[in-house]
Amino acid sequence: MEWLDKVKWNQDGLVPVITQEFETKQVLTLAWLNKEALRLCAETGHAVYWSRSRQKLWHKGEQSGHQQIIQSIRLDCDNDAVLLEVIQNGGIACHTGRHHCFYNKLVDDRWEAIEPVLKDPKEIYS
Amino acid sequence: MEWLDKVKWNQDGLVPVITQEFETKQVLTLAWLNKEALRLCAETGHAVYWSRSRQKLWHKGEQSGHQQIIQSIRLDCDNDAVLLEVIQNGGIACHTGRHHCFYNKLVDDRWEAIEPVLKDPKEIYS
Repeated sequence: MEWLDKVKWNQDGLVPVITQEFETKQVLTLAWLNKEALRLCAETGHAVYWSRSRQKLWHKGEQSGHQQIIQSIRLDCDNDAVLLEVIQNGGIACHTGRHHCFYNKLVDDRWEAIEPVLKDPKEIYS
Repeated sequence: MEWLDKVKWNQDGLVPVITQEFETKQVLTLAWLNKEALRLCAETGHAVYWSRSRQKLWHKGEQSGHQQIIQSIRLDCDNDAVLLEVIQNGGIACHTGRHHCFYNKLVDDRWEAIEPVLKDPKEIYS
């Protein structure tokens, strides 16, 4: 599809993707897409990423139930970054059981975890 | 500094950085940091990136005057992505003269530029 070829895929065939919560505008995650994942995002309306650690497609929420329902797909000025706006099922995007992944804040030369764990990861992935 | 070593720098010594507008929560840009850039962000309170195309530090706004005043610096759960909250001087973050870089929206298998150009780039960079 032509629109997929407009994206500047990097040497590994990936682009970074920012996922932002539609309602709160909170940035939830930074993840990666390959061409197939982005195609599936558009076709299914659910967030699908490329897992670099597992080297396979990662249907967000497949284990946790915390699917992300896509509201919009955007591409930046250089065609090398994507932004998804989503509704976050269960209100938890992070594998640590937090609302989002950016919970470490720099305070006086130290990273402080300032967001609460909403659900024990053992419960999420059991 | 220890907090800089907590970051998982990639094989090129970089991490992706999402920059979000403090007031509107709009995602402005996706850029990259090396260790020196992140150190300068923390020390100066102004956004400094690593330009991959020019292979040098990029003090945001040095040409355009559109500096970004940092309100917080955050690190994600995997220590491999950074989120900056900023006040955007001049209300323009994108080199195209738009408020932000994610102005191409996927509409029916086509990317449509849906955000207005606020200032002619020729004026910004003259």
